[in-house]
This record gives sequence, structure tokens and C-alpha cells, in this order.
Amino acid sequence: MKYTAASLLIIHMLFAFSASESQGDEGMYLFNDLPTDLLKERYDFEPTERWADHLRLSSVRFNSGGSGSFISSNGLVLTNHHVASDTLQKLSTPERNLIDDGYLAKSLDDELKAPDLELNQLVSIEDVTERVNSAVDENASAEDAVMQRRAVIAKIEKESLEKTSLRSDVITLFGGAKYHLYRYKKYTDVRLVWAPETAAAFFGGDADNFEYPRYNLDATIMRVYENDKPAKLDHFLRWSDNPLSEGELVFVSGNPGRTQRIFTVAALKYLRDDRIPYVLDYLRRKEILFQQFSLEGVEAKRRARDELFGIENARKAYTGMLAGLQNPQTIATKRGREDRLLDRVNENPKLAPLAKAWEEVAAIQKEKREMLGETVSFRSRLFDIALEIVLLGAEDLKPDEERLRGYTDASRESLLQDLLSTAPIYDDLEQVKLADELARFVELRGGDDPLVAEILVGKGPRERAADLVNRSGLKDVDKRKALIDGGHNKILGSDDPMIELARKVEDEYRRIRKRGEEIDERERQAYSRITEAITAIEGTGGYPDATFTLRLAFGAVKGYQEDGNRIEPTTDFAGAYKHAAEHKGQENFDLPESWMKAKDRVNLDTQLNFVCTADIIGGNSGSPVVNRDGHLVGLIFDGNIQSLTSDYLYSEEQARAVSVSGVGIIEALRSIYRARDLAGQIGR
Amino acid sequence: MKYTAASLLIIHMLFAFSASESQGDEGMYLFNDLPTDLLKERYDFEPTERWADHLRLSSVRFNSGGSGSFISSNGLVLTNHHVASDTLQKLSTPERNLIDDGYLAKSLDDELKAPDLELNQLVSIEDVTERVNSAVDENASAEDAVMQRRAVIAKIEKESLEKTSLRSDVITLFGGAKYHLYRYKKYTDVRLVWAPETAAAFFGGDADNFEYPRYNLDATIMRVYENDKPAKLDHFLRWSDNPLSEGELVFVSGNPGRTQRIFTVAALKYLRDDRIPYVLDYLRRKEILFQQFSLEGVEAKRRARDELFGIENARKAYTGMLAGLQNPQTIATKRGREDRLLDRVNENPKLAPLAKAWEEVAAIQKEKREMLGETVSFRSRLFDIALEIVLLGAEDLKPDEERLRGYTDASRESLLQDLLSTAPIYDDLEQVKLADELARFVELRGGDDPLVAEILVGKGPRERAADLVNRSGLKDVDKRKALIDGGHNKILGSDDPMIELARKVEDEYRRIRKRGEEIDERERQAYSRITEAITAIEGTGGYPDATFTLRLAFGAVKGYQEDGNRIEPTTDFAGAYKHAAEHKGQENFDLPESWMKAKDRVNLDTQLNFVCTADIIGGNSGSPVVNRDGHLVGLIFDGNIQSLTSDYLYSEEQARAVSVSGVGIIEALRSIYRARDLAGQIGR
Repeated sequence: MKYTAASLLIIHMLFAFSASESQGDEGMYLFNDLPTDLLKERYDFEPTERWADHLRLSSVRFNSGGSGSFISSNGLVLTNHHVASDTLQKLSTPERNLIDDGYLAKSLDDELKAPDLELNQLVSIEDVTERVNSAVDENASAEDAVMQRRAVIAKIEKESLEKTSLRSDVITLFGGAKYHLYRYKKYTDVRLVWAPETAAAFFGGDADNFEYPRYNLDATIMRVYENDKPAKLDHFLRWSDNPLSEGELVFVSGNPGRTQRIFTVAALKYLRDDRIPYVLDYLRRKEILFQQFSLEGVEAKRRARDELFGIENARKAYTGMLAGLQNPQTIATKRGREDRLLDRVNENPKLAPLAKAWEEVAAIQKEKREMLGETVSFRSRLFDIALEIVLLGAEDLKPDEERLRGYTDASRESLLQDLLSTAPIYDDLEQVKLADELARFVELRGGDDPLVAEILVGKGPRERAADLVNRSGLKDVDKRKALIDGGHNKILGSDDPMIELARKVEDEYRRIRKRGEEIDERERQAYSRITEAITAIEGTGGYPDATFTLRLAFGAVKGYQEDGNRIEPTTDFAGAYKHAAEHKGQENFDLPESWMKAKDRVNLDTQLNFVCTADIIGGNSGSPVVNRDGHLVGLIFDGNIQSLTSDYLYSEEQARAVSVSGVGIIEALRSIYRARDLAGQIGR
Repeated sequence: MKYTAASLLIIHMLFAFSASESQGDEGMYLFNDLPTDLLKERYDFEPTERWADHLRLSSVRFNSGGSGSFISSNGLVLTNHHVASDTLQKLSTPERNLIDDGYLAKSLDDELKAPDLELNQLVSIEDVTERVNSAVDENASAEDAVMQRRAVIAKIEKESLEKTSLRSDVITLFGGAKYHLYRYKKYTDVRLVWAPETAAAFFGGDADNFEYPRYNLDATIMRVYENDKPAKLDHFLRWSDNPLSEGELVFVSGNPGRTQRIFTVAALKYLRDDRIPYVLDYLRRKEILFQQFSLEGVEAKRRARDELFGIENARKAYTGMLAGLQNPQTIATKRGREDRLLDRVNENPKLAPLAKAWEEVAAIQKEKREMLGETVSFRSRLFDIALEIVLLGAEDLKPDEERLRGYTDASRESLLQDLLSTAPIYDDLEQVKLADELARFVELRGGDDPLVAEILVGKGPRERAADLVNRSGLKDVDKRKALIDGGHNKILGSDDPMIELARKVEDEYRRIRKRGEEIDERERQAYSRITEAITAIEGTGGYPDATFTLRLAFGAVKGYQEDGNRIEPTTDFAGAYKHAAEHKGQENFDLPESWMKAKDRVNLDTQLNFVCTADIIGGNSGSPVVNRDGHLVGLIFDGNIQSLTSDYLYSEEQARAVSVSGVGIIEALRSIYRARDLAGQIGR
């Protein structure tokens, strides 16, 4: 389930509504609309409000693209190694390779501050659907509707921020049928406490990714600080000392990034025939690019490491998603459900007009197909910074309510944290990335395109990228700050070549973004009508498609059948050593030295990984898994290969969420990493 | 310069005419039209007919996609390790990894017979232009012209084969302005004598590929047999004992695969904006696919090795080609030449009508763009075999002159050698390849395409591929033979699922192939008129674009400037050891054990690699490099990165051909591989 930051950024998020006809342990429920009846019926469990509030307040979102939980009163946070790896990468230097070697802070003084991490704790949820919808004129054009909706959302967010000082985000749910205001307490001083070696965290590498059985210690511990001191937390998870048994009920509290279960058949076909093949071409291109860069030497490899991991992981995930869609049975299943639903809609004179929404969605897919490849976002750190600065300068001249999403007053703090991050920027890597983006731009538009000519100024993409990166001053945080503080005129007058490049594409960027937003608005309106039809026929009580906001999933610890073999639900440390021995000589199958040395000390029977039927997706990485008592029993880190289709179709036959066992983490800390002091802080 | 078999197959070959305004050491000359005046003028050298005939008859073509030379009277053949690697792969087993470990036959009995290698020695060339052109009606439609031309070519080839028993190929030259009949003596019993380890042959791996300075022993020695005995050869190359000096004149006699120097600006833009990006997407997809397969274990890695190498190499070559085309200067240069030429054409009332040919070429590029992705060739060994058998059965019913190219009587022997090859076929690798091809087919046509549905029969691509591979009997050479011998009716009646699949796509295959051939015919006619215009203005004496037939190139051993540094033209064994030490810890930079053990014995000053200005391209791999005396001084194995644009634009400023030194090969055989007996046979 390792699609974290990289892949969340790659795919434009689409907020849509849940599957109709949900089944079994399916569902990513809103904390203000938990499936109490279902839990009672299936598992004879009734979550109290206190139980749910405590779990919600013990959960955090990593804005780099993942989930986590508070695990001690003195600020400890548990997440995956692969969620923390963005920070590990940024804190690494040629001399200190945290990704390869791991880390253990011996004291508070040793804890390493992340350069740009923001953690969010969900404090409250408020339904603002009526206010949002009443601000949008029913007969407005898509263009006007976008503006009206954006304006009211900016207003709600700003008011809330001013009133509460909490991060305030209006979330679009059920594909546009509902709008909720989420208020978050932000933690921006986050420090690294412990990380294992990648060889332990990502044991088996790309080969084992999305596979099961697994033996991975994909865990990292950080600590949140306030006023330069460890934060004092009222809500954190206690840990269970007991290993899990098959059949046991567990809960996952985390931030699934994006699902597309409401998607109509036409929308799924667009994914199958256009969107996912397009994304996969992009990912494979980047994968080869980063591999090639890594061949240049040990230090180059270190620099490209985290991005390459993210790309590999996304490529494998999308390959699985596409394989599912290409299986004719998948579309046939969806087609059957849709036909049954449409029959009932058409049968009912009151609902029949809503059937047009399906046609509208189909029409929109064609427009989306035309827009594929329309981009001027040259993904590289320096260009991203330049474009954001150029947009910020221009947006600041407008009233708050007219600004682009992400540039309002309510978003400013998070935007600045990103723009002023001290994370290292490597010239060589930047050049390679930008050169490839420029080359791709030539491919997408053709070499005769006037904007291509304007951007290349007579040079080849490589030469041009080298020139831009070498001459730009944006590596220097102070120079960025000076430009931002100087505002629009200062930015207009800048002769920084990267800023000049961003200005050259600004109009085109805005044109593309506007068209995309209008298409999204029309799609929201269509899915909102589809939701209306579904609710009329099937009633309420479902869950909305994932939106990278906090959700509760549930399920049982459960093995499965694969190619005629029974796959047991849990693994242990003994299995890890055996797996290493069986794959001797293969890359990424060597356990780290710390593990080999500790073999005699480790209690080999201790559970290490397990699977359950809970409904998760990318973004859930790092989510705590808790038992009925709300005690931590695991840490989500992956889905098995059969779960890759759960983006659009949940199944509990073989699809499983994969977790590190809580008891396994404690055993590793004590016996392998000799971090008894840290282990002692956990859960208290 | 490692685009051998894999890449030659990937790109549909286009036979076209040379650059106008050739310069310096540019040119890949026909052996029956050598640039004697130019050589006299530039190098004061006049090749005698005897010199040229001897060199021609000492040269061989590897039909797997490369070049080579005879180097002893008792049948020894020198080529590159990466040309031989197709055979090394086919002769390897889990227990005998010839690619990793190399090989040395201690006696004739140890020499290992290649399962399907065909070597061609060019015996004679005859101009048949008039006969070909007079058979094509001037006013024929493209469809009829294709048939007429195909018929006369088949007839010429068949007559020649019957008369001489030599392989007889009519070659299209100068983009269709000339047709020559090439007669070849074939060697089909070829055995492996010596190969170094890949670590020595491909030292530096993908990172160093197309780079210079280099230190690679990219050489392999085979032996041709006749009647189960080493062939007795009248023509073979003597070896020079002297190291090369800067400025020395050298010649390359080999089979450049394909150049596109006659291409109009419109045709180059099609390459830049459509064709090469399309090919690169394909190559990156296959690269990731084979990488993923290789992760499954040591044996999987061995099985995929040679194909993965070929793909990596082609990807790097095409990336360089595209980068050159994306540099606005390249098109500007070509545009300038074309405009000057067109001005002169339009000025001359007799030539002016020929200017339309440029417009025709431009129009054809649009049709080619539309055809991109039209394919039913599911590249996997079993499917290729099935389709060839199905086509063979159907073509055999027609008169020889109406058959598809490759299925005529004259081609039968080579086709059967391929179809009945005993090279191993691995189920797991076949499944992965076929599944990916089927998945790509869904992507290219869309999942709703009727042919897609017919082919998938309700299954996902992976399931379907597994089923096809598991149930097909075509792995068994005897079953293939029985089908071929049984002819059309037997093939029609076969229930082998792979044969059934090939039959399902046969009509579509023929439709696509026919359309492609018609486009090629029109393009040939247009380039033939363009050639007429160029010849009228610039005179004769040029060279035709490469056609994977024997050519002579010439040039000087010469260093160059790169990023302000002087790059020396030669390297030595000392440099190899130093290069390994400097890249310690990087993949593919460890010299093999044999080299490390022999370090004290090796004469470290011996030349190992060198560069020269000769005009070469993929397919030249394995070509002998000879001096004025016709003695072997080197073995072409690569071009530097600056030479990657030479597909469409030759330059001698920085572009260089890279060779292994002849003296280096002898030194390695003697001091590292202790193959004194073999070394003693060479050159005599």
C-alpha cells in the first residue's frame, strides 16, 4: 500500500462516492457517521463515542502523504518507514545515510528535526453542505459555478481559521453531494527518533512489494514538539501485549488517499484505456530516468533513492490496477450493478431524470482524454518553487475568495512551510529531472509548438535544463523568501531564469487548470445526482470514496487461499531469517547486520506481520491497527497484490491489508536495536 | 553501437538515400562503388580491387544482427561478445551460465554449436535496377506496384538461387532509386570457441555504454564448420602487431543496419514527435518488464539477461537520437540544407516537378502517425513461431512471386532454420512477455474492441497468456516440424491454442502489413525522385543509407574535446584496472576474477580500446577495423554518446566509433585467458 506522496501527487485526486451494494468488511467510514449497526450485526461490537473520539484524536495525518498515530504521552508518533522516508532522505547527507543505515536518537538532543513535515490531528467535523450549495447558483455555467464554490469554501475556511486558529479544510464528499469542514491541530516541529535500515523496513524490495507472506519492519518513530519541547499528549494509543489470532476484529484509523468506487462504467473505461496507460508510461519513464541517474555512482544513488522508491511502488500499484480493469470480468461486474441501478432509476418517474447524469459522466471522459498530456508542470523542485512563487505573487493581489485553491489565507502557512523548506536540492538531480520534463514537453506538444520554442530558446532540453539550474538562485532559501516578501512586482522584475520560465508558462498553466476545474465541477454535479439516485434507492449509511481524510475501516485477521495454497494470516521473526536464507544472492534479500547479529537474542516466535480484511488504500500507510479495546496491535504498511483493484472494487476473498505487528515492533526495538528506553516510553 | 538484433527488429527498416553535402570521413560506401577519389584526396590511399575483394570476402554478416570477420584459415570468426550473446544465451543452462562465466573450448570437440545462427559472406553484387523498375507499371496504384515489385524481386531471387545455390537477396538502395542483387555464401554450422565474462566484455555496464574512454573486451570467437569440420577459408584477415597511433587511417567493413540521412525535414519531425517517443515508451515498458521478471530469482535473471541487455541498449540509443532531434539546431541545420536544395530544384524547370516528392513524403508521415500502434504481433517466441507457421502454410498455396517477403522459396531455408531452432523456450518468461503484449494490445485498441474480446475470451491478459503458454505444444520442435510438413490443412485443423490465436489475428496482420507496404512503396517512389533531384544537382558518388548490407567506412584514429577536456584516442589495460578501482562499489564495475588474478602477467601498456572517425551505426557491431595493408587492428563495438545522432546526421567533431584493439584481444587471450593455442591460430 506504498502509494504515498509520489503517487498521490501524480494523480489528480477525484473525490467521489462509495460503492453501492457494499459487502462484508468493505468501507472507509467517516468518524461522524460510523457503521454502528453493521459492526453490531457482524461483530457484536458497539463503539462508544469515547472510544471513537480517543482513536480519532490519537490518529495523525502526514501531509507528505501517509498516516500515523500518537503512541506516548510525551509526543511519540508511529508511522511507516516508507512514509518517513521523505524526511529520512531530506535529513541525509553523503556522510549520514539515514535511509540505508537507519537511526536511533540516544537522547532528546539527538532527535533530528524534519525540514518541512506537517502533521494534522483531526479535532472536529462540521457539515457545511447547505452553505456551500446555496452559494452556487443553480443555473450557473461551469465556469461561474467553480468560482462561486471556490469563493464560499475560501470564506468558510478563513472564518474558521480566524475563529479557532485551527487548520480548516472544506472536504468534498460523496462526489460533491456533501461538504464537511475539517479542523486540524497542526504539528510542524516533528523530529526523528528511530528508523530501522531499509534492508529491514523494505526487506525483499520491489520483488516482495505488494506480496504476502511478508517479514518487514516498515516502521519509524518520530516525536512532535511544541515550543521546542516534546508535546504533552492527552490522546495516544496504549499497546496490546498479545499476539493476534485468526478471526480477531481489528480497526484501522487512517487517511486513505483516493478510491474510485462510485465510478461509472464509462469512467472506469477511461481509466482502463486512457488514464492508467498514460500514467504508467509516465512512471516507467521516470523509473528508468532515476535508475540511470543512480548508475552514476554511490552518491547519485543516495540522492535519487526516495523518489525512485516512490515511483517503483506507484508503477507496481498501477500495473495491478490496470490488470484488474483489463480483466473483462471486472467491467462485467460493474456493468451488471450499474444496469440494475439504472433500471430502477428509469422505472421511477421521480428519479428518471437523474439517469442523464450517467451520460454526462460518459461525455466528460472524452474531454478528459483530450486533456491527457496537457501540462506545463515541469516536475522538479526548483521549477515547482518558481511556479508557486509566481502564482503566489499574482494571487495575493486578488481578494481571498477569488484565489486559486492552495493560495488562500487559510492555506498560506502550509504553503510557506513547503516553499521555505531547507531540504537539500541537488543540482545534478534537478538537471536530469528538468531536462526530462522539457524533453517530454517537446514530445507532448511537438517540436514546432510556439511555447516549446519559447521555452527552449534554441537549446536542446538537456542544455537548457543545465543552464536553468546552474543560473537559478532559488536553491537559496533566503532568496526565495526575499522574492515572496517582495510580492508581485518584485517577482515580475526578477531575472532569475527559473522564475522567468515559470512566468512564461503561467498563462498556459492557468488555462489548463481552469479547464480541469470546470470539468471537475461538472463531474461533481453529475456524481452528486448519481448519489441522489443511489441514496433514494438504497438508503443512506454508506461511506464516501476516499479523500485523504480520516476514516475508520474494520475487518478480521484472516488468511486466504492462493493458487490452491492456504496463506496463513501471521508471520514471525523466524520466517524473516528463513526468507533471507531462501533468497540468498538476490538483491534486497539480505537482512541488515543488526538483525544477523541479534539472531540469538530475538524471540523468533514473535509475530512480525499479519493480514486482515480491513478496507484500505494508498494513504493508509502508517495507520494504526487497534483492537476492540482501542489498543494498538499493528501498523498498516501494504496491501497484497490481490488488493490492488480495491481502488474501484473491494473484495475480501483474497484482498488483504498487510501490517507490522505491534508486538513485533517492540521485540525489534528491544532485542535488535537495543532501544529499551524508547520501548519503555511507548504506550505510556 | 550496441543496437543489434533487438533494436533492428523493433524498428521497421526504411531504406533510404545518403546525406547530400557529405563531409569529412562521412560515408558507408558500397563495395561496388568505393570512394576512390575521396580516399586518394584525403588520405593519399588507393584501394586496389584485390584489397577490396579480400576485405569483402573476409567479412561476414551475423543474421542475428551484427557483423564479424574471418580471422584464420581454419574457420575462426571474430565478433563482439554482445553480438554473440544471443547464441551464448541460447547455449546457457541453469548449470552453465556462458554469459556470466564466459567459455573457452580446449579442443575442437569442446566447441559448442549455435542452435540457429546464420553467417553470410558477400560473394557478388549485381545491379538489377532496370529489371525491377521495368516490371512496375508507371501508372500502377501503390497496391499494384507493391505486388509487381514483389513479384519481380521474388523471381530474380529464385532464379539466382537456382542458378548459383547462393543466398540471393535483392537490396533496395538509395531509397528505391537502385536495386542490387546480393549473393551470399551461407554458413549455418557455427560453433562457440571463446567468450570472456560479461564483466569484462560489458565492463561498466549500462552506465558506461555509449561512453568513452572505455576498457571493454567486447569480443568473442566462433568457428564456421562445413561438413562437420572446420571450414577451410581462402580469405581471412591477418593481424597487425602494432598499436595504433593518432591520425592513422583505418577502414571498417561491416553491415550498418539503418540510417535515415536522406530523410526530409518532415520525416525527421515525424521521428522526433511521434515515432521515437512511441518506440521509447515501448522500450521502457519492456525494460521494466524484464527487470521485474529478473527480480524473481537468480535463474529468472539468467533467462531474461540477453533480452534485457538488448532493450537497455536500444533505449539508451534512442534516447540519444531523440535528444539530438529535440535540439532545435538539428532541424535548423537540416532545414537549411533542404531549403537550399529545393531552391535549386525549383529554379530548374526540368527538376521543378520533382519538388512534389517532398510534399508526398510529408503527407506520408501523417499516415504513418495514424498507423503507430497498429499491431497484432505479440512479441513472444511461441506466438512468433505460431504466426510464422500460419503464414507459411497460407503462403505456400500461392505462386512464389505472390508470396509475402520472407516466405518465398529463396527465403525458405533461413525461415526454417529459425522455426526449427532448438534454442530453449522458458514457460515463465514466455508467459510474462505474452501477458504484457496482450495487455498492451488492450491499451492500444481499448478494452471494447471486438478483436480484443475475441482474443481474451473473457480472461485477463495474465490468465490468458498463462493458459496459452501452458497448453501450446510449440515448445516441441518435432510438433512444429509436423505442422510445417503437414501444410495449410494441417495448420488449419490444429487445436494448438497458440496456432488458434495466430489464426484469429491473421487477417488483421495481413491488413496492417499490406497498408504498411503500400506506404513504403509510395515513400520509395518519393525518395527515388528526391534522389533523382539530388543526383542532378550534386552528381553521383555518394553512398546510400544503411541497409544491413556490407559497406566500407573509413576514418582516422582521433581524440576529441569534451567539456573543455581532451579525450585521448586510445586506452590500455592499466586504465581498465584503474577504472575498476575508481568505481568500487558500483554495479558492473568489478573486473572478473580472471582479470584480477592475471594482473601481474598482463602487459599493462597494451592498447585495449580506441576511437576513430569512421561512419558507423548499429549493425556494425563486430565489424573488423583494418589498416592500409588490410590487416586487422580492431573490432568495432560501440559509438560514443555524441555519435547517437549519426542515424540522421554525421559529424566528426566529437562523434566517434569505439573499438577493441586487435593487440588487446591477443594480449587478453594470452595473458588472462591462457588461450595460447587459440591465439596462435589467429591470422594464419
